[in-house]
Amino acid sequence: MPLPRPAIVLLSGGMDSATCLAIAKADGFVPHALSFRYGQRHAIELEAAAAVATAGGAVEHRVVDLDLRAFGGSALTADLAVPKDRTPEAIGSGVPITYVPARNTIFLSYALAWAEVLDCHDLFIGVNALDYSGYPDCRPEFIVAFQEMARLGTTLDTLTVHTPLAALTKRGIVERGLALGVDFALTRTCYDPAPSGAACGHCDACMLRLKGFREMGLEDPAPYVNGERYGEELSRGR
Amino acid sequence: MPLPRPAIVLLSGGMDSATCLAIAKADGFVPHALSFRYGQRHAIELEAAAAVATAGGAVEHRVVDLDLRAFGGSALTADLAVPKDRTPEAIGSGVPITYVPARNTIFLSYALAWAEVLDCHDLFIGVNALDYSGYPDCRPEFIVAFQEMARLGTTLDTLTVHTPLAALTKRGIVERGLALGVDFALTRTCYDPAPSGAACGHCDACMLRLKGFREMGLEDPAPYVNGERYGEELSRGR
Repeated sequence: MPLPRPAIVLLSGGMDSATCLAIAKADGFVPHALSFRYGQRHAIELEAAAAVATAGGAVEHRVVDLDLRAFGGSALTADLAVPKDRTPEAIGSGVPITYVPARNTIFLSYALAWAEVLDCHDLFIGVNALDYSGYPDCRPEFIVAFQEMARLGTTLDTLTVHTPLAALTKRGIVERGLALGVDFALTRTCYDPAPSGAACGHCDACMLRLKGFREMGLEDPAPYVNGERYGEELSRGR
Repeated sequence: MPLPRPAIVLLSGGMDSATCLAIAKADGFVPHALSFRYGQRHAIELEAAAAVATAGGAVEHRVVDLDLRAFGGSALTADLAVPKDRTPEAIGSGVPITYVPARNTIFLSYALAWAEVLDCHDLFIGVNALDYSGYPDCRPEFIVAFQEMARLGTTLDTLTVHTPLAALTKRGIVERGLALGVDFALTRTCYDPAPSGAACGHCDACMLRLKGFREMGLEDPAPYVNGERYGEELSRGR
């Protein structure tokens, strides 16, 4: 029987990374969860990340401070308006204003540093099919290039960046997560939450998440502003 | 006449990056200097970086806070002893304890984020021949892989990581820097400086730096502990 192997799982507190953590665990890895406090407007996600890490069986959860606001350039880290009520087609076209320059490169680089200290050869990141078109740092070619760069730039002779959600739709992620026992009520995805932590229900992240639950015929268990149940409402309205 | 192009120059405050900045400027780029406060024991280098940025004609100088101590694993960021009085051969063999895991990957990733915001397609980093053997993230193959990863992971369609010191020895760097008017008295290289900022004269970085000056028949103008002039002393002693 092989020894359990450590894996570093990037954990944002959203539904994708929560599912990614569950998959790493189901695949037999010992998950070390890594989150970032990067000046995001939706800092509520870090509380979600801590809850998800515990529920998902991570052996430890570290939060690294970094300041992506130093360079600006994104609605998530600067005072720019978060787009609302966009269609899936609009969300999927062009680079969205919520794109944070080189964010996944920076996140993966920190994960790589920790991997090298732990002598760990596996990273998990929850990029998925719906992210590809707009975010260049979610593309499979980018992930492959990162692996090669990491192998050459560290003392690790191999590194695998696992992207188990790469080919999944949001519906597929909900389905896979539920099958693995992910408690989606703990997860937070919204780009523009209320001070209470309730999701807005209208930003790109909410729109895609709600579509995923709706297509499964389910209600999203996470809280939305005014106690509305957008999954249900949208399901009725379609 | 081509318009001046911006370039981001990683600036540590040491002799290599100071020379790298001078080369970027001499090549016609408009240099934006980037330094990091990463929990290094030798924080004096950030004061040096600011002085070097001004003297070297950088149009701006940003210092990004990051905490590489979060993961440990290096004598530069943890409470591990810095090796002293090692020979060039010993310095060149194996991965030194002063190696910071994935450091250049993280530094270059931040530079990449800034490049994307500035729509800048050129980065300069002062890695050089003497660093190769011990530091995996100084190898040319790593730099090439980083460029490819950066092109795929950002909205920039091209990115060139310039390593103008790659083929130079420390002696060659001193020679090139002096030809371009670099004031080496402003630069700080030591891994283990005194509280005054004076260099120890015995760590790997001091040993290589002093060798460079000695081979040029010059005295290092930077301050050393006890006011000693190690360049001169070593020169006499060889």
